[in-house]
Amino acid sequence: MNIMEGGSITSPKGFRAAGVHCGLKKQKKDLALVVSEVPCAIAGVFTKNIVAAAPVLYGRALIKRKVAQALVINAGNANACTGEQGYSNAQKTAELVGKVLQIDAQLVVPSSTGVIGYQLPMDKMEQGIVQAASLLQHEGGSDAADAIMTTDTFRKQRALTVEIGDKTVTVGGMSKGSGMIHPNMATMLGFVTTDCAITSDCLQLIVSDVTQKTFNMITVDGDTSTNDSLYVLANGLAGNREIKDVADPGFGEIYDAIYALCKYLAIEIARDGEGATKLVSVHVSGAKTPEDARVVAKSICGSNLVKTAVFGEDANWGRILAAAGYSGVLFDPYGVSISIGSSAGLVKVAEQGTGTGFSEEEALKVLQEDEIVLEVKLAEGDAEATAWCCDFSYDYVRINADYRS
Amino acid sequence: MNIMEGGSITSPKGFRAAGVHCGLKKQKKDLALVVSEVPCAIAGVFTKNIVAAAPVLYGRALIKRKVAQALVINAGNANACTGEQGYSNAQKTAELVGKVLQIDAQLVVPSSTGVIGYQLPMDKMEQGIVQAASLLQHEGGSDAADAIMTTDTFRKQRALTVEIGDKTVTVGGMSKGSGMIHPNMATMLGFVTTDCAITSDCLQLIVSDVTQKTFNMITVDGDTSTNDSLYVLANGLAGNREIKDVADPGFGEIYDAIYALCKYLAIEIARDGEGATKLVSVHVSGAKTPEDARVVAKSICGSNLVKTAVFGEDANWGRILAAAGYSGVLFDPYGVSISIGSSAGLVKVAEQGTGTGFSEEEALKVLQEDEIVLEVKLAEGDAEATAWCCDFSYDYVRINADYRS
Repeated sequence: MNIMEGGSITSPKGFRAAGVHCGLKKQKKDLALVVSEVPCAIAGVFTKNIVAAAPVLYGRALIKRKVAQALVINAGNANACTGEQGYSNAQKTAELVGKVLQIDAQLVVPSSTGVIGYQLPMDKMEQGIVQAASLLQHEGGSDAADAIMTTDTFRKQRALTVEIGDKTVTVGGMSKGSGMIHPNMATMLGFVTTDCAITSDCLQLIVSDVTQKTFNMITVDGDTSTNDSLYVLANGLAGNREIKDVADPGFGEIYDAIYALCKYLAIEIARDGEGATKLVSVHVSGAKTPEDARVVAKSICGSNLVKTAVFGEDANWGRILAAAGYSGVLFDPYGVSISIGSSAGLVKVAEQGTGTGFSEEEALKVLQEDEIVLEVKLAEGDAEATAWCCDFSYDYVRINADYRS
Repeated sequence: MNIMEGGSITSPKGFRAAGVHCGLKKQKKDLALVVSEVPCAIAGVFTKNIVAAAPVLYGRALIKRKVAQALVINAGNANACTGEQGYSNAQKTAELVGKVLQIDAQLVVPSSTGVIGYQLPMDKMEQGIVQAASLLQHEGGSDAADAIMTTDTFRKQRALTVEIGDKTVTVGGMSKGSGMIHPNMATMLGFVTTDCAITSDCLQLIVSDVTQKTFNMITVDGDTSTNDSLYVLANGLAGNREIKDVADPGFGEIYDAIYALCKYLAIEIARDGEGATKLVSVHVSGAKTPEDARVVAKSICGSNLVKTAVFGEDANWGRILAAAGYSGVLFDPYGVSISIGSSAGLVKVAEQGTGTGFSEEEALKVLQEDEIVLEVKLAEGDAEATAWCCDFSYDYVRINADYRS
């Protein structure tokens, strides 16, 4: 597997994209279009929030057709809590794209992100769609990745190549996150393209499984969004023999590539969480089951007290153990050891559930780095999991106290 | 039922208390002693965090004896994650109190609050216990309430009187909260005394039920502490006929008094949450079951995004609906209406799941007050519940980024 330099969602063969400003946000790009030359197998996962946005309701139904050709994504307006008009605006958006691209509107998947509770201004949307369609290009991936950002501070995109038989298959993707990030099915918005030939059913298998280990393992603020969606489009232009079954050659390779890409995109969302100054990886091992490990890791990642302590560079391991303790998973508190690590070293702060009498100075040196690892070892079994979050700073409060203004 | 002016945990007959500084905290009082003239019926509820502090483990076992006479509470050190030595220090604390007061050590209930992971300095504890015992007085309730505070900014105490038969029964109490507040059984620390004659079993019934509606309905930061404990002591000195059964005269009266007191103490904890600038009551009605109403209300109270919006005085109702949506309770999003109220008025911000086009100016006026009510009406049934939290400010981050230093 290789990471492509400058790779994006348009790196796979046959994909073009554009990102434009149509006035949903004050100045920044706010509308992205991603189009494949030919129809694609599609798979997707969505928020489990029962207050799901109109494009989520629309997209859930759409992907049952298993085929799609274009993605249209707007930032600045979530089209959530917008009732029937919202749903009809999602449909209208797809129709506008279909008309401009001269493809069936049912091949167009709309997504939205931004503020909840306002109707999409369809005149601006139309103008943006027309403009974006005229700018579609193979090099347009970065513009699209820019156009889906809300409070994100940097674009999130990557592409990988993998060999399947004698063919090179490329997987590209982009995501956006920042706030209201505590995915329960998928991140706020994630998009993956590939030129791999693979059926929609196989793609769905991969995406559902990969999401559990990547996007569903990050948290910024514990708030599960109304708009979480992850779509994967595969157009088959790499020319490999179509993957129709988990036992087919190439299934493992494309699984690994999609996993690696989704993991990267998920971690970048955690790193760029609202107000984040540090990326925190929580690795839980020694759990009885993988699900136990996941639940404990996510509970620690979800603790405001753990995250403010990391922001304050304070090795307050008691908060880590307390957060594990209220996760709902049963374990022996006196079997737990905890280490705090970074590129500056690794300090064991607790053993057998109590403090080790570690050097605070050493711990501070470790915590001053930008990427922190919290290693939590239980004594219940062999299962492990990793979750990712950011620290919790003043800026989270500042950003969210005046989000709408 | 009457609220006593200047009432405290020592207002019921036969209770004395003291609060002293013994050096666990830098300058403030950090050790409280509450003693009854005669042995009391005792009941208690505790944290469900499986990483429970030593005094919680000790207290859980102790209250099975159903009788107690003294409470000893220290702040500045939670005696949590301290292993066997921690447990033995909790026991030692009770023994020291028993020796000084010349009562059986098994009648003494120890509680701790403060930083996790350090052994109690028993020499300081002993010194504090001896000093507190020498200062015990009927007017000592406020000193005790001061001595149990950590990052609390004001003491929390109250006393009520209620008539049972021809006797006046008094109920007094104190609590502390501030951070790591998301009780799952009881608040961090709460203590209630009464001179009511009532059996320990009846008292336990009342306390378990009342806790569900009061302390378990508040949240500051979603972190369930290792030390949550609520104890109620009843010494019978009011002279009423002993309440031995829920059907006995006076059960309803003492239930109501304990409920009113616990509700008051719980709300005061939410009001004084770390960094709080506003008290938020979330009232959910129209739910299918009381449990559904409680879960939705707590989910909204637990949302960082709702709480930062309240801090920013932003009527961002979409976040309220989103937090209800991920609570796990099933409801029709398009049956929901939301109003935001305070002493400055009531503004309906959403109806049938979408915005009402309310006046932002009016909403701002409502949100500028110190006490905010979020009214969330579902369309599923008749059940309702109220939860309480504070808003989420810069100061929460400041306080928790350097808690240990």
